[in-house]
Amino acid sequence: MQINIQRNIDVSLSNQIYQSIVDRIHSGLLEEGLKLPSVRNLSKPLQVSLVTAVKAYKRLEQDGFITSIQGKGTFVKAKTKENLSGKETTSSYVWQLSVQDYLPRSQFARFHIVPQKVHLSSSMIDPKLLPNRYFEHEVHQVLSKNPELLSLFGEIQGDSQLRCEISEYLKRSGVLSTPENIVVTSGLQQGIDLIARTFVGPGDVVVMEAPTYPGAIDIFSGRGATILTVPVDKDGMRIDILQRVCEKHRPKIIFTIPTFHNPTGVVMTLKRRKQLLDIAVSNQCIIIEDDPCSEIYFEKKPPVPLKSMDQLGHVIYLRGLSKTIAPSCRIGVLTASGSIFNRLLAAKANNDLGSPLLTQKAILPLINSKRMIDHKKKLRTALKIRRDLVLDLLTRFSPEGLSWTVPEGGLNLWISLPTWLDSHLLLSESKKQQITFLPGSACFPIGQENNHLRISYSYVNEEQLTYGITTLCTILQDMISSKTISENTPYF
Amino acid sequence: MQINIQRNIDVSLSNQIYQSIVDRIHSGLLEEGLKLPSVRNLSKPLQVSLVTAVKAYKRLEQDGFITSIQGKGTFVKAKTKENLSGKETTSSYVWQLSVQDYLPRSQFARFHIVPQKVHLSSSMIDPKLLPNRYFEHEVHQVLSKNPELLSLFGEIQGDSQLRCEISEYLKRSGVLSTPENIVVTSGLQQGIDLIARTFVGPGDVVVMEAPTYPGAIDIFSGRGATILTVPVDKDGMRIDILQRVCEKHRPKIIFTIPTFHNPTGVVMTLKRRKQLLDIAVSNQCIIIEDDPCSEIYFEKKPPVPLKSMDQLGHVIYLRGLSKTIAPSCRIGVLTASGSIFNRLLAAKANNDLGSPLLTQKAILPLINSKRMIDHKKKLRTALKIRRDLVLDLLTRFSPEGLSWTVPEGGLNLWISLPTWLDSHLLLSESKKQQITFLPGSACFPIGQENNHLRISYSYVNEEQLTYGITTLCTILQDMISSKTISENTPYF
Repeated sequence: MQINIQRNIDVSLSNQIYQSIVDRIHSGLLEEGLKLPSVRNLSKPLQVSLVTAVKAYKRLEQDGFITSIQGKGTFVKAKTKENLSGKETTSSYVWQLSVQDYLPRSQFARFHIVPQKVHLSSSMIDPKLLPNRYFEHEVHQVLSKNPELLSLFGEIQGDSQLRCEISEYLKRSGVLSTPENIVVTSGLQQGIDLIARTFVGPGDVVVMEAPTYPGAIDIFSGRGATILTVPVDKDGMRIDILQRVCEKHRPKIIFTIPTFHNPTGVVMTLKRRKQLLDIAVSNQCIIIEDDPCSEIYFEKKPPVPLKSMDQLGHVIYLRGLSKTIAPSCRIGVLTASGSIFNRLLAAKANNDLGSPLLTQKAILPLINSKRMIDHKKKLRTALKIRRDLVLDLLTRFSPEGLSWTVPEGGLNLWISLPTWLDSHLLLSESKKQQITFLPGSACFPIGQENNHLRISYSYVNEEQLTYGITTLCTILQDMISSKTISENTPYF
Repeated sequence: MQINIQRNIDVSLSNQIYQSIVDRIHSGLLEEGLKLPSVRNLSKPLQVSLVTAVKAYKRLEQDGFITSIQGKGTFVKAKTKENLSGKETTSSYVWQLSVQDYLPRSQFARFHIVPQKVHLSSSMIDPKLLPNRYFEHEVHQVLSKNPELLSLFGEIQGDSQLRCEISEYLKRSGVLSTPENIVVTSGLQQGIDLIARTFVGPGDVVVMEAPTYPGAIDIFSGRGATILTVPVDKDGMRIDILQRVCEKHRPKIIFTIPTFHNPTGVVMTLKRRKQLLDIAVSNQCIIIEDDPCSEIYFEKKPPVPLKSMDQLGHVIYLRGLSKTIAPSCRIGVLTASGSIFNRLLAAKANNDLGSPLLTQKAILPLINSKRMIDHKKKLRTALKIRRDLVLDLLTRFSPEGLSWTVPEGGLNLWISLPTWLDSHLLLSESKKQQITFLPGSACFPIGQENNHLRISYSYVNEEQLTYGITTLCTILQDMISSKTISENTPYF
């Protein structure tokens, strides 16, 4: 178990140790019953005092993550029983526990098998809302004309025909990018990963929004980055705070989701976009612009991407095609300029030698087709109906003390509970009713807040949405009332 | 430009600096004309003496990689003009050059566009030898029955139906693995990468065969590993030497390609396989068993995989399905046990959230079909014919001083030239005749030998093979004769 400690940030060392262990437990990487190192063996390699280690373990015990048994040691209590495979911790494999790894967290690994009924945790689009039969027809056309392509490897950078289509496609959002400056990635996730493995190493400063996309936190912490955070408000990342962070620390990378921010759904204003670019230029740092679903807007079109205003090659732009066009193809796009681009292409070669040709050829006829463009209009309407349904249900049924942001696009809605209410407790209750959502703590790189949750309204149908939201409201009502009752019960 | 220096290995520091810079130039990561740091600025962060830095630069200059201009500095001369994109080093992007990266090498990135006629560098199978029409028919069946799958994300671990089929498939080679212990990867390359990102960090000792697969070297050096090498002979890795290496250094990982070793084509004997496993057990280390194409055997079936004899979970087994079944799907398999498996699954989630569902569903009906099993027999025969053709041509036309190993399976043949002959020089001559191959130096993690080349006989047809091999022989004959002549010319 490796714990990364950062000494130049404002989070106490004991909190960092606490957080690291919680992250690993939430990621299913520390299995129930696993013996943790003694405080002495924990503190020595980390070069922290015994007091610090004791403090971290005490808080972990208070919060129910670990348990100490006199004379035996300290063990993982695992609030959640979903470790990754579980069945297999036979004694023959015990030697493996001493093999150190470099994985501080992995928030999604646990979700690889999801037996629940109502997936409010899935930030994906309901397959019933996508034109599958048309897609199937197009794939058939491509393959029957040229079956030999099934036996070809594609280019490492991505199929050249597809890169031409993508270049056209990006132009519609204002991103001017030549086919030579595009890498086809295996989903947006791989795009973030390629950047991290190329440019982020231990101690490099990465600035992220708080909250932000958990998959990106997993990646940057895996590279040993020093992650600093900047809060978001209704206009996106707080640029005034970013400015102060940059004055004190020299970030190498700023990671942002300016359009329909994940998880809050807010949109960064044009003014802030320009300010952000100026900050990147004056600090000579890289901006990662993560754009998973800017096409899913409900009212007006969002402002132009940062990349469209980037003159000096500071922005690496990542666009997802998976969610809105063809989820089964897992295709993402990375575009950048200059030597930064060259190095990212080399990283793609090292990671997987190129994405599959089949998925690229399959998506080719779709991305700029009139039918798909028309379809997206319908998709926006359908998703707006679902968003409005959720907003309506929340307004009608949510207990007092809840608040939420109204997303102007995207797939997610961010709900804040009273600060004393831990969304992990809500999750374990809601799972009994076959409902899942993303606990908000996963979205904080440091200083995790436990009283939020992310609901995705895009994956399940209206009936399930209604069941899911009303049930969550009922559970919450019960949790809040029982606390009020217990607080008001006189001591006699 | 970051250079990793290892102080506990038998390679001099100046040689390590030399090698790092050559690796970056060969990978297209240092562009022609780029200014290198002064010897003072190079030596300081590396904590090496000025003399060491000067020695490295002198050798680089002697070998034609860099050039010093009095009063101006030292510049990359770039023997090869193929940097990755090249067109774009406009002055607006100059700030990017100071952005440090963590990519010591990437041997394949340069090959992303291959305009040559005769690809003896491509270790892939000629698409004409695969049953494309049958494959196309099967894909059509799957999709027309269930078009909705086009709009679904798969599981992070891999489609559960596919994992069941893979489990059956592996059983035929003696690897007993349950569907729960399989991760579907994006090609074998990603499998190696997942292991490295999970278990390899700066200074961790990785033992590799020398020569070995260049893509694996790229990955481990990218993680800052201390790479040690063990030579191979006709019976595979020299276990006696491995034993001595393990006594001196404590490896965390041993990377091996026991069956039809890439690039040499040799097969590790059963006896050595057992010895290797014993060494892993007594040193408590992980073996990566890389198995790209054990099905392509020409004489007898190779010995059972190491994984089939692994009782204690020491072996992580990687099998490629890309080459022999469906190159356009880029599907690989990783199987391991215990907590090592759990952690690799978490790494898969962090890297790309799972491989595309389309490629997995496409390959599903093929991997255990009778037709595909029958087809593989034909494939073996067709490839044996090509191998025999190359052996025959070499015997008839190669100049004196060449030697080669006879591969009993796989796709590659390893040729050794006289030690004074640099295969990069041969490559630049052969490219003029539209012929490419893999220069052997790419296959050495340390102590690179320049007088080898890897020829793949699987990708091009017999006519092209004949043209390619005879032309290479002619070029070599000329190079050897002209040296002999110049050596024998008296000085007057």
